[in-house]
Amino acid sequence: MTPWKAAQPGDSIAAIDTPSLVLDLDAFERNLQKMASALQGHNVRLRPHAKCHKTPEIARRQLALGAVGICCQKVSEAAVFVAAGVKDVLVTNQVVGASKLAHLAALARTARIGVLVDHPSQVTPLSDAASAHQVTLDVYVEVDVGAHRCGAAPGAESARLASLVAASPSLRFAGLHCYHGTAQHQRTPSERAASIANTVDLARLTRQEIEACGLQVECITGAGTGTFPLERDSGVFTELQAGSYIFMDRDYGDNQRGEGDVVFEHALFVKTQVLSRSGADFAVVDSGLKASSVDSGMPTVWKRPDLRYTKASDEHGVILTPSADALALGDTLWLVPGHCDPTVNLYDELVCVRGDRVEALWPIAARGSLL
Amino acid sequence: MTPWKAAQPGDSIAAIDTPSLVLDLDAFERNLQKMASALQGHNVRLRPHAKCHKTPEIARRQLALGAVGICCQKVSEAAVFVAAGVKDVLVTNQVVGASKLAHLAALARTARIGVLVDHPSQVTPLSDAASAHQVTLDVYVEVDVGAHRCGAAPGAESARLASLVAASPSLRFAGLHCYHGTAQHQRTPSERAASIANTVDLARLTRQEIEACGLQVECITGAGTGTFPLERDSGVFTELQAGSYIFMDRDYGDNQRGEGDVVFEHALFVKTQVLSRSGADFAVVDSGLKASSVDSGMPTVWKRPDLRYTKASDEHGVILTPSADALALGDTLWLVPGHCDPTVNLYDELVCVRGDRVEALWPIAARGSLL
Repeated sequence: MTPWKAAQPGDSIAAIDTPSLVLDLDAFERNLQKMASALQGHNVRLRPHAKCHKTPEIARRQLALGAVGICCQKVSEAAVFVAAGVKDVLVTNQVVGASKLAHLAALARTARIGVLVDHPSQVTPLSDAASAHQVTLDVYVEVDVGAHRCGAAPGAESARLASLVAASPSLRFAGLHCYHGTAQHQRTPSERAASIANTVDLARLTRQEIEACGLQVECITGAGTGTFPLERDSGVFTELQAGSYIFMDRDYGDNQRGEGDVVFEHALFVKTQVLSRSGADFAVVDSGLKASSVDSGMPTVWKRPDLRYTKASDEHGVILTPSADALALGDTLWLVPGHCDPTVNLYDELVCVRGDRVEALWPIAARGSLL
Repeated sequence: MTPWKAAQPGDSIAAIDTPSLVLDLDAFERNLQKMASALQGHNVRLRPHAKCHKTPEIARRQLALGAVGICCQKVSEAAVFVAAGVKDVLVTNQVVGASKLAHLAALARTARIGVLVDHPSQVTPLSDAASAHQVTLDVYVEVDVGAHRCGAAPGAESARLASLVAASPSLRFAGLHCYHGTAQHQRTPSERAASIANTVDLARLTRQEIEACGLQVECITGAGTGTFPLERDSGVFTELQAGSYIFMDRDYGDNQRGEGDVVFEHALFVKTQVLSRSGADFAVVDSGLKASSVDSGMPTVWKRPDLRYTKASDEHGVILTPSADALALGDTLWLVPGHCDPTVNLYDELVCVRGDRVEALWPIAARGSLL
């Protein structure tokens, strides 16, 4: 960890040390409200994904605005949120191995805990762990609805798995997990609509197969920031998992918007500073790979379309400048990260600002919760 | 942080939870010894870069084997090592801004602290901070010796900067920083040799210009794991900064080796586990972008040439398999990270193993030290 703070509440934003991860509270709160409004009057719940923020202070605000619980991706991540008081967590992942299963089951003593399966061999260990801890786990069958990563095949294979779950001690068949990850970043509205139309068909088909076995499918959960209006309006999904809408990142910002899409604002920034200006046509800033994940491309420079961040090394970023006087040594810039989730995971704190002042520091308590 | 440990000393390696960052101590110690042997009888010192490991336990072992000090890339990173007892740290970076300069100068009360400049405007703030803290800072002129990132122009420009440093209160002109970063990963020995031959020429030329001004150049420091035998044998460099040799990563392993290159071993691994096996030709493991940085390409699967890690999302990795029975649910694999530095920065601890046992957990104390 950094042995001192990047800022203190009350500081001016000019005083925030660099590189720092900064949350614009006004934009963040507008994003929260926009999502709440977008779901009002629709028969779907919001269970936002916390893997993007890993921050209990944010989960609390989402729950206060009506979210029914949160999603996590790791057992240890879920443990951080349960310890912070969250009472309903769905781990949107398969959990394998005795140690992780024991931790998962232990969480169900104080919170409602859900988890996914996509193979029959995962069911008995889950059941055994839940029985050993005298708890009941909500188990969702993950269906491969187009992303071709995890997930049982739609239809009969998923139905067999649901029946197996329903017949297992200490497990409750809770529904279907139907998330299409790759659709989130398809650039055109028509591509996303086609992908999710297929996802909805596969989810509906699988629900029908399961109902034909005499089981109820009380929840179909999925969707992300890129596609959630489609799942919301599907008549099939009952729960949405969008997470990145609170922050937005460059990658989501690059999606072309279609009719009905909700426009969220960039609320998450890396504040950075120019530390070298040795070239006429470039400047070097203090934010590289350890300050902003580049897996989905480079960050952009906020409100400076004349500048282009082109290259990241461990602790440096190279910014092309149109002229030698476009940036001076010591100048600060605000970067919009390419991908918010792995960027947030690099920091211990969010520096929360409102207007030109630091209002709070929020611990990113589940940063590095990998297990 | 993860609220529990991935392993305890004495555990079998089979018991290490996933994903975890694992250091093979035997291979690591052989790498340390190989570097010490490679420099024996040469008139160059080793000042290994700690940005790749961020781990005081590793710095201590490097110092015990003859390193004169360490390099850090950030003031807050240096602070962690000084607090851990390291007495000689070179911050191989420009330091800009009052807060950082105050922290840097404060460190010089308990350790010898070096820092770089590449522009005249950096000199007075450094001098003022050192004077205010009643310390002397070692200041190196960074010369652009081919990487075209930071660095003053070789020759007269660098000489003027050296003179300015030498004339400034509380600063000592300590030498030249001549690191050619992009040469480290040029794949062929002849490309690397050509780049470093040019680097050496520029360093020599700059030294001569400075000596012509009546100043001594007592240290020329630089080099990395990819090129250090060239700088060692140059007759110009007096200090080497290689860091990654202790771990090696896939990217360094991809360099073709030339005559005189020292062969280091992969000592750093991400232990991972198969959590889904829904496809016949691929498996999904629990290590994605938050477990292994992919900026320099995907990890490889250790001792499993039949498997190929092809895609990373936040918490998942996709591994192509030659057949459905090549990997089973729950199987564990050892990944060689594409790039060690940003991968280490994702973890709080190194799980250190010897043979089939966990021997120790070493805190990655400067993980996330970004300021």
